[in-house]
Amino acid sequence: MGKQSTKRTDLRTAVILINMGGPENLDEVRGFIRNLFLDPHIIEKSKIFRSFLAFMISTLRSPRVKKHYQAIGGGSPLKEWTSIQAEKTSRKLSRRNPNMVFKTAYSYSEPRIGEVLAELSTMKFDRIIAFPLYPQYSKATLGSIYSDLAYANRMLKLSGTLITLPPFYEHRGYIDSSVKLLKRGMEEIDTSQPYHVIFTAHALPQKLIEKGDPYGMQVSQTVYLILRRFPIENYTISFQSKIGPVKWMQPSTIGTVQEVARQGIKQMLVMPIGFVCDHIETLYELDIELAGIAKKAGVETFVRADVFNDDEDFIEFMASYIEEHIK
Amino acid sequence: MGKQSTKRTDLRTAVILINMGGPENLDEVRGFIRNLFLDPHIIEKSKIFRSFLAFMISTLRSPRVKKHYQAIGGGSPLKEWTSIQAEKTSRKLSRRNPNMVFKTAYSYSEPRIGEVLAELSTMKFDRIIAFPLYPQYSKATLGSIYSDLAYANRMLKLSGTLITLPPFYEHRGYIDSSVKLLKRGMEEIDTSQPYHVIFTAHALPQKLIEKGDPYGMQVSQTVYLILRRFPIENYTISFQSKIGPVKWMQPSTIGTVQEVARQGIKQMLVMPIGFVCDHIETLYELDIELAGIAKKAGVETFVRADVFNDDEDFIEFMASYIEEHIK
Repeated sequence: MGKQSTKRTDLRTAVILINMGGPENLDEVRGFIRNLFLDPHIIEKSKIFRSFLAFMISTLRSPRVKKHYQAIGGGSPLKEWTSIQAEKTSRKLSRRNPNMVFKTAYSYSEPRIGEVLAELSTMKFDRIIAFPLYPQYSKATLGSIYSDLAYANRMLKLSGTLITLPPFYEHRGYIDSSVKLLKRGMEEIDTSQPYHVIFTAHALPQKLIEKGDPYGMQVSQTVYLILRRFPIENYTISFQSKIGPVKWMQPSTIGTVQEVARQGIKQMLVMPIGFVCDHIETLYELDIELAGIAKKAGVETFVRADVFNDDEDFIEFMASYIEEHIK
Repeated sequence: MGKQSTKRTDLRTAVILINMGGPENLDEVRGFIRNLFLDPHIIEKSKIFRSFLAFMISTLRSPRVKKHYQAIGGGSPLKEWTSIQAEKTSRKLSRRNPNMVFKTAYSYSEPRIGEVLAELSTMKFDRIIAFPLYPQYSKATLGSIYSDLAYANRMLKLSGTLITLPPFYEHRGYIDSSVKLLKRGMEEIDTSQPYHVIFTAHALPQKLIEKGDPYGMQVSQTVYLILRRFPIENYTISFQSKIGPVKWMQPSTIGTVQEVARQGIKQMLVMPIGFVCDHIETLYELDIELAGIAKKAGVETFVRADVFNDDEDFIEFMASYIEEHIK
């Protein structure tokens, strides 16, 4: 009858770490952009219109986006970091959970979510744990992943239980790891002089927020919990990576840097919220584009806080978050 | 620049407790149903079609629904309980926060969310805290409230900051209060004999879940956290209140009771997850309809766990959840 609690660690368990994906080389850029804009959770239009739009956007944008990837070494490190996160978390859990297998899957890159589930469905797992690596829920990110999981689950009729871990935007372990990164960033700031901290998260079209998406609220909640552990008076939550003509969440990260600089503040710490590893949004948008804008606006100390990548505390959080759900 | 942290308790603060609402007497039943089905977050069709559907459903369903309300005393106690929650939480906070005013607002009853915000916008509040009383997020419930809040905020250009509290499905205080209610219910069960615990939550159309709604996952997470504090081996999470012809989340609460009874289990504890006070879903659907079905199926001990209403621990949670967000 239904779900039963169990404490056995001899159950065969597969864990899938899920992230958005990214082009590993310049040849993959266009296909990646195309997959992204084909997602009905990103563009809420008819399939035909989406196909057309995805084709157009990927054709028009890929030359420029390729240049950005070129500037960060020719591709996104996201898949590599995700594999490292899988390997390290696996190693941490292996002693207590010898029957646990780790996989990675991506929303817009190979291997896609449905593919990995299809592969696992041919093997005998008692349970499959889907661990989407987005701290905050939005229909455009986690919603898309949940939807893919639900669809694959229905089509494949998986024999084992599919357990999907919920967003961890207020989980103690995630907050603690974030506080550590914030503190490390703050070490480069001279707090006897004026400074400003900018928490930056990926923007969404404002329309999604107005339709009831909880993303903005969860981002605020994350920042709020971080600041309860490490209070800072001068900060702003802002949103980056806007593209296209529609209205996106405000204020923008670029606008915020310029506004703070206009007030004569020469030190800035920019902390990404919501990305668990480096990719184009941190390595290009923040480290190259935003740093350039800040410098031009007169900022003297521009620090970008680290994201987790293979941070030991974050791996510890990942391991314990998985274990919490199978105890 | 942006949001600044502050510890001042002399800021003028309004708190709005938000719930779905309910008809206070039989004359309000039809209008309430109509408002519910006019909500684009509930029925995702064009406005014209929704108007037609809301008219049809409210016309066709209200005679039957009126009978249900008649059976529980002629109306829903939801608004009364929400007022009591507001008053008690207010009293608890008043010493430390003398400048705090409490209001209630409803998605489908008077006073509606936009109305209350409009009233508050004419007064001078430094901040307005919206506290939606749904533990778990779904587009159909919290999404609708967030959308109303965002719309009203944009239209009214509120002078103070609007702070919306996020869903509390895994908040320690909420989980602790739930565990207390579960324990209290379990006192009526003879644990030396077979029994089954059914955690019941309001169903959603399965299509919403497949489109990426996190509701099901958050319900599971709540139950999971409750069971970590108070382990029970024999339980099921099920979904109630399905109406209409579309496919809803499975398993159904009625079906689960029947299935458990078929296995010869004579003791059942039914615990509502997601409702913070009594209304038709607990007082009619569980206490009258489901209890009758259970009895007919041979269940001898049918216990329905309490919901919070004016439970002291839950009021304590509400007060501290508000304070956590204004510290």
